[in-house]
Amino acid sequence: MPTYRLDLSYDGTGFRGYARQQGQRTVQGELESAMSTFLGEIPETSVAGRTDAGVHARGQVVSFQVEGLDEGKLVRSLNAMLGGEIVIRRCARVDDGFNARFSAKARTYRYRLNASRVVDPLRRHDEWTVTTAIEPALLSAAVEHFVGEIDFTSFCRSVDGKSNVRRVQFARWEDAGDERQEFWVKANAFCHQMVRSLVGLSYDVARGHTPLAEVQQIIDRRDRSTMGTVAPPHGLTLWEVEY
Amino acid sequence: MPTYRLDLSYDGTGFRGYARQQGQRTVQGELESAMSTFLGEIPETSVAGRTDAGVHARGQVVSFQVEGLDEGKLVRSLNAMLGGEIVIRRCARVDDGFNARFSAKARTYRYRLNASRVVDPLRRHDEWTVTTAIEPALLSAAVEHFVGEIDFTSFCRSVDGKSNVRRVQFARWEDAGDERQEFWVKANAFCHQMVRSLVGLSYDVARGHTPLAEVQQIIDRRDRSTMGTVAPPHGLTLWEVEY
Repeated sequence: MPTYRLDLSYDGTGFRGYARQQGQRTVQGELESAMSTFLGEIPETSVAGRTDAGVHARGQVVSFQVEGLDEGKLVRSLNAMLGGEIVIRRCARVDDGFNARFSAKARTYRYRLNASRVVDPLRRHDEWTVTTAIEPALLSAAVEHFVGEIDFTSFCRSVDGKSNVRRVQFARWEDAGDERQEFWVKANAFCHQMVRSLVGLSYDVARGHTPLAEVQQIIDRRDRSTMGTVAPPHGLTLWEVEY
Repeated sequence: MPTYRLDLSYDGTGFRGYARQQGQRTVQGELESAMSTFLGEIPETSVAGRTDAGVHARGQVVSFQVEGLDEGKLVRSLNAMLGGEIVIRRCARVDDGFNARFSAKARTYRYRLNASRVVDPLRRHDEWTVTTAIEPALLSAAVEHFVGEIDFTSFCRSVDGKSNVRRVQFARWEDAGDERQEFWVKANAFCHQMVRSLVGLSYDVARGHTPLAEVQQIIDRRDRSTMGTVAPPHGLTLWEVEY
């Protein structure tokens, strides 16, 4: 059967995350329900990044196999059913064997922080407004330690026996103007809550709660129980997936 | 009685506009209800710009008079009650005689247009995604005619006998990157639906529906019945008010 790739964006606010869960409103649940209306069957899908509740996506990728398909018609039909909360950007046939999860070479996430101390009503669902004054230079200094092939056990909920080693290509805070700071991080893959934990630690450093000198020690300890702040999910967006 | 000034932002999505209306959820209704919980009375308020249903505000201003007030406590209390959809940025005592509406010297609005032809789920409530290809240079050329002291009768719903002459200080489209165009317009005051009509006309020109040469003729005609597209409200934000 031919393999197809869907590129989609979503506002994670109203969902209990990407992955289907019994009795919960999820992105996968809504997407597959709309697909089954169009296709007459629920295809088995694979996803690049299983985002948590409240996390958004700009460049999520899903793959599936079906017998023959009018891609343009599928996109229009799904977008009409999904109504703006989930948007299908494109659908294309890809090489046999393509799998949105296992073929992915790298993922990029963005985390948006509002340091103005005043909530912006129009961005309240996609930026974290912190209540404590922060030193932006310390945000940047804190995340320098996270580039390279690193064991992220101190930052990830352990999945028994599985490695938490990930290759991070870049991890940097950028000034987005108007007292907003954006964290951009790209890695081959991420373990659970990894980005939010890195954001939380850099925030703890930038607000003077954790000394900068401790960051490397926290990494080396490989012990999640000592972790501090985990940043809330709504500031996080899965930005891009590379194949 | 002392006069106070409130500066506030809101996400207009869930409201039938600013002005109180019987049986409708409005910004004024929610704000005054929260104020009455704090003050024990509903004060008479004045507002800089009565926004329509779905229109947002970043820098709305409201004034009112009450006997004595802890400004900081009012801000914290209102923000706790209003929950992020309406955010009080500050409250300050101002000179007697200050009136948010009548003391205002100029208002600035922003209208955000998404020309990528793909809805962004996270901005679907504050940008207008157009479905037709547009020529950005024509957006800019169209609005050059709107600067100065002009009779906007062709662009405003008439309120019997009242003048539609307004002084526009600037009206320009700016490239906001990522195929977004933003219209910035500042005037002493605006008549009803004026910004959305100007956006609609520049869109009609930029998509090749209305010849650029007709813009001045439409202004000179002073006849609203010939107006074309009125841009939808959700792309519009009251940005700033000057006193």
